[in-house]
Amino acid sequence: MVIKTAGELDKLIRDVLTAAGADERNANRVAEALVSSSMRGVDTHGILHLPSYVEKIQAGEIVPTAWPEILQEDTTSALIGGNWTFGHVTAKYAMDIAIKKAEAHNVAIVSMVQVNHIGRLGEYAEMAAAKGMLSVVWAGGFGEEKPVAVPYGGRQPVLSTNPIGMGFPVGDGPPMVIDYATTTVAGSKVMTAKDRNIPLPAGSVVDKDGVPSTDPDAFIDGGALLPFGAHKGYALMLAVEFFGRILSGADGFSDEEKRGGPTFRHSGVSLLVVKADLFQAATVYSKRAEELANRVRSVPPAPGFESVLIPGDLEARAEATRTRDGIPIPNPLWQRLTALADSLDVNIGV
Amino acid sequence: MVIKTAGELDKLIRDVLTAAGADERNANRVAEALVSSSMRGVDTHGILHLPSYVEKIQAGEIVPTAWPEILQEDTTSALIGGNWTFGHVTAKYAMDIAIKKAEAHNVAIVSMVQVNHIGRLGEYAEMAAAKGMLSVVWAGGFGEEKPVAVPYGGRQPVLSTNPIGMGFPVGDGPPMVIDYATTTVAGSKVMTAKDRNIPLPAGSVVDKDGVPSTDPDAFIDGGALLPFGAHKGYALMLAVEFFGRILSGADGFSDEEKRGGPTFRHSGVSLLVVKADLFQAATVYSKRAEELANRVRSVPPAPGFESVLIPGDLEARAEATRTRDGIPIPNPLWQRLTALADSLDVNIGV
Repeated sequence: MVIKTAGELDKLIRDVLTAAGADERNANRVAEALVSSSMRGVDTHGILHLPSYVEKIQAGEIVPTAWPEILQEDTTSALIGGNWTFGHVTAKYAMDIAIKKAEAHNVAIVSMVQVNHIGRLGEYAEMAAAKGMLSVVWAGGFGEEKPVAVPYGGRQPVLSTNPIGMGFPVGDGPPMVIDYATTTVAGSKVMTAKDRNIPLPAGSVVDKDGVPSTDPDAFIDGGALLPFGAHKGYALMLAVEFFGRILSGADGFSDEEKRGGPTFRHSGVSLLVVKADLFQAATVYSKRAEELANRVRSVPPAPGFESVLIPGDLEARAEATRTRDGIPIPNPLWQRLTALADSLDVNIGV
Repeated sequence: MVIKTAGELDKLIRDVLTAAGADERNANRVAEALVSSSMRGVDTHGILHLPSYVEKIQAGEIVPTAWPEILQEDTTSALIGGNWTFGHVTAKYAMDIAIKKAEAHNVAIVSMVQVNHIGRLGEYAEMAAAKGMLSVVWAGGFGEEKPVAVPYGGRQPVLSTNPIGMGFPVGDGPPMVIDYATTTVAGSKVMTAKDRNIPLPAGSVVDKDGVPSTDPDAFIDGGALLPFGAHKGYALMLAVEFFGRILSGADGFSDEEKRGGPTFRHSGVSLLVVKADLFQAATVYSKRAEELANRVRSVPPAPGFESVLIPGDLEARAEATRTRDGIPIPNPLWQRLTALADSLDVNIGV
């Protein structure tokens, strides 16, 4: 394990991405997104992704100097074309627009197409919450070419992890931020379980015949991921597909063979933003939101739990710890990052 | 079991409610809502509720001649005060407004306060879908006085069933309609399981010490309902509380002691409506929505399942069956309904 500061990782990411062809504006934004995730303990969406982004640039899936544009717009909505730049760039651009529209008109809905991996959905929900707004982020369409998730009661995958993010300002404290795949686990967790030779949680996967299993190999050998929470999580997975891919019209923007690669070529992401103080003073909203959060947190824990949390609490704790102690990077990842830097003649100064 | 037509139930409900003090406009609307649920096989939200609505009128919780009003409004949002009329009246009034605003401005958010039980959330999602719109319905605040649901990892209830509804037009077929409690089961299902002496599904309840159980008595003896899908369903439950109770500012409208009763006095319901053809032609949206629905339905079923459904399929099937065969009413319920009619001197003509 090596320990790095946010500043060190930020510089590493910017240097690697500019060496790989990104312009400074884009490299800065991707560094911001990855470091923000790593700082919050969401390592699955942090610097881990840097090597794959470089590969996607080299494969023509990401256009590292492109910039998003507004394809259609009115007072409360916009359709953003990402032009296949980094998804983090497109999603921040889109959320900025959604926030401005909601500031002026109370509510806004903004969709994105031609959008690569946007990283941690919670980051965009945090942006909205910091401006006093409730938000929802729906990201669909990842499974059009390589489906990994079965519908409830089905034996063949036709959908994907279909993540959803939501954010709610909570007084002076950190916002309540929700960000999860609508599958029980993501594919990366299956691989981690296999590496560690441990079973998956019940309800995670089915084998190739549609039979539920906790064996990582059942997934690897032609199986698929299950929606979380049986038919209820499955319904949410479908809702994400409708609000993400279908509403955005993403299918009409996926004509370029290389761009986006199989996972993002058909993907569409939509944002809903609503002013928290739409129907009451901001101070009153804040007081009520804080009361709810604190009431829930003060519930005595059930056996096996240390405390009751609200979504976002773990990330806020991790951020405090990592601000103080730095970001731990597992050695194998660090070796991949230094090898990547070497391959691009980037001096990472360590 | 007795069998009744939609028309027979409609007349019974209207006659009983007007005898109990409702005006004709309100009685007609409640009959429409209850019959619609009974027709779709959602008996938990159908004519079953009629006796309790009469009790709530008599207790002053429902004001059966009141009508909702607009408390605040702009081009894309409105806050509706239900004036403690039947929730079905308020919610349809609010959804009509949301649809009109979204027709003119593409997206709308409308919240309700002073709102009694609105019945089946899916009915409002169906209204929006029939006008070519995507929608979300969040109903929160039921647990302020009588909480029944624990947070994930907690041993004391502080929340409630916090239902969510969503609707999506799907070409010429029935819409995809989602409508569920964010608890694994509703309290009524616990009672049904106890009556039948069968265990609850895993993850349904905790006992008074917060230990998960499948025993209905564990719930009855000081236990509580669990959110569905562990931390993910719990997060959705909290999101419903924010979009429902907190966003609407419902807490500021609950000063009348009798009105709404303990469950609805603090409740707030919010509606999001978005035009399905916001970013593409309606015909293109429809084609893509239908393709998704049919692709999912055509997945071969897993062992133990007959077919793969999308949300709303079961209700559409039930409606076809009950249109042909009538609505079955269990004898004990029918006896309660006839006794109720007798007590109000209503001649139900059977």
